[in-house]
Amino acid sequence: MPETHANPGSASALDVLLPWGDLDERHGPWPSGVRVHVWDGLTPEDELPPQVLESAGFWVMPYAVPGVERLLPRFRGLRAVQSLSAGVEKVLPLLPGGTSLHNGRGLHDASTAEHALGLILAAQRDLPRWAEDQRQGRWEPHFTRSLADCRVAVIGYGSIGAALERRLLACEAEVVRVARRARPEEDVHAVTDLPKLLPDVGIAVLVLPETPATEGLLGEAELAALPDGALVVNVGRGRTLDTQALVAQLRAGRLRAALDVTDPEPLPADHPLWQCPGALITPHVAGGSAAFRPRAERLIVEQVRRYAAGEPLLNAFPRA
Amino acid sequence: MPETHANPGSASALDVLLPWGDLDERHGPWPSGVRVHVWDGLTPEDELPPQVLESAGFWVMPYAVPGVERLLPRFRGLRAVQSLSAGVEKVLPLLPGGTSLHNGRGLHDASTAEHALGLILAAQRDLPRWAEDQRQGRWEPHFTRSLADCRVAVIGYGSIGAALERRLLACEAEVVRVARRARPEEDVHAVTDLPKLLPDVGIAVLVLPETPATEGLLGEAELAALPDGALVVNVGRGRTLDTQALVAQLRAGRLRAALDVTDPEPLPADHPLWQCPGALITPHVAGGSAAFRPRAERLIVEQVRRYAAGEPLLNAFPRA
Repeated sequence: MPETHANPGSASALDVLLPWGDLDERHGPWPSGVRVHVWDGLTPEDELPPQVLESAGFWVMPYAVPGVERLLPRFRGLRAVQSLSAGVEKVLPLLPGGTSLHNGRGLHDASTAEHALGLILAAQRDLPRWAEDQRQGRWEPHFTRSLADCRVAVIGYGSIGAALERRLLACEAEVVRVARRARPEEDVHAVTDLPKLLPDVGIAVLVLPETPATEGLLGEAELAALPDGALVVNVGRGRTLDTQALVAQLRAGRLRAALDVTDPEPLPADHPLWQCPGALITPHVAGGSAAFRPRAERLIVEQVRRYAAGEPLLNAFPRA
Repeated sequence: MPETHANPGSASALDVLLPWGDLDERHGPWPSGVRVHVWDGLTPEDELPPQVLESAGFWVMPYAVPGVERLLPRFRGLRAVQSLSAGVEKVLPLLPGGTSLHNGRGLHDASTAEHALGLILAAQRDLPRWAEDQRQGRWEPHFTRSLADCRVAVIGYGSIGAALERRLLACEAEVVRVARRARPEEDVHAVTDLPKLLPDVGIAVLVLPETPATEGLLGEAELAALPDGALVVNVGRGRTLDTQALVAQLRAGRLRAALDVTDPEPLPADHPLWQCPGALITPHVAGGSAAFRPRAERLIVEQVRRYAAGEPLLNAFPRA
């Protein structure tokens, strides 16, 4: 249910629309002049008072609410919009002229890297098999793969990739850094080197945003270049991986996969990926853990402070 | 099938019985005078030539073969026995007088710490739930717990505990070190401090050997001291945790558990633990991953070199 807090009668009001209403309880009072409205994206949008769509100058979009960006064209005076996601490909086409876009870069590093590590360990240590054995009350140990000693390609070496690398190194794995463009001073290879890197890689992790340049970046040829039994992990965006080519490799028993993002999304109940052998699927939850909220709150509080002070907001996302 | 390698007719033979026969292919020739016999513990023991039980002076016991220690009293001239496990509580009672025991300390650090981390991440990030949803073709995301920002008690802070700590710190968790005896210079608390430490801990990991002093160390009172929703992890020995008290806490929905070791073991098909809500069980496989074999081979090669040279073997385990 929408609520309105703080300075309701302020003459020169700075109206902001936030997904949570209790931040001031943990982070101290809002700057003077700020009028906070709250909409969590889950209550029907017609409960949003029309005057909020008129007055709000800064909107922090509810996180992980599919389709919430459809509200963008209905605002009348929006100067800035904050996405709590790092990927903003669905927001960009709806962004009103004159509104700046700010993304959630950094908020998801810990949560996403942690989930990627969880997927990798689950796949290497056969956790889905043990869960099934538990259901059946069956104690049948066998040797498994490990992460230690593996060479892992982190494809999309940004802030999430670096957070994942720190976790992989602690697990005694070796990391090969890959990004759109080579950055030799950081030992980052270009994606164009993938055909010669992949044959020596046991695990390939995609941490890529969705852009025209990344679509299908891990395609039939790249998957074919991976050695038998290699693990493909995706915690970036589903469309960066060629689903049809992956399904063929999984069905042949040649590769394994652990996917938090898919193409399409949500994955329909009858999609072949669900039941492919060697596939482990989670429903786009890498960023959505308890690690997210405190980091997101700290960003929101700082952005509202900047907005009220007329300072440039953080994490400006360039228009295409 | 037993095999005999190298210098079969040597006059002053140093006979050793190993679980694998191909180490010299990867690690170079055996020292002169060494006669290697191989028994993997899986083929029937009556295929072991009786003269090997007569002649072997050094036996490396097959790893993770239940009951293999029953062979110990049948050796006639055993000077040293190597367990590839860190816990040797089943070997000690059968150890012949005059035979030294060497354990697998260090071999399992990477594998066991990695599996403990996998169990923790699986529990925090709801992987068993996602696996079940996958079986049903169901895409229903929800927010989960995380490991980041959690306080984790590592109870049994030895070499495996330290390996686990490195992984936990990389995941932005906080670690509380606990061992049998306090070691203030290493910031290690004594287990007697558990009642005052546990109320502030989100995850408690047991990495303890089985000894008379550790039996039931995490019992009813300690479990009751943990906060609601806390996760209990055991990768040490099953009997260090009070199973009955844990089952009661799980059934009440108050605690969660991720157990690689149980009491009894193997867990019978009708044991209540299997189906307790919030329990994740793997069948004592933490040490048994691909990370183990290369580390075990390097130890075996060094021990055989020392045995042949008449030098003291590594990892001597004190008799009780």
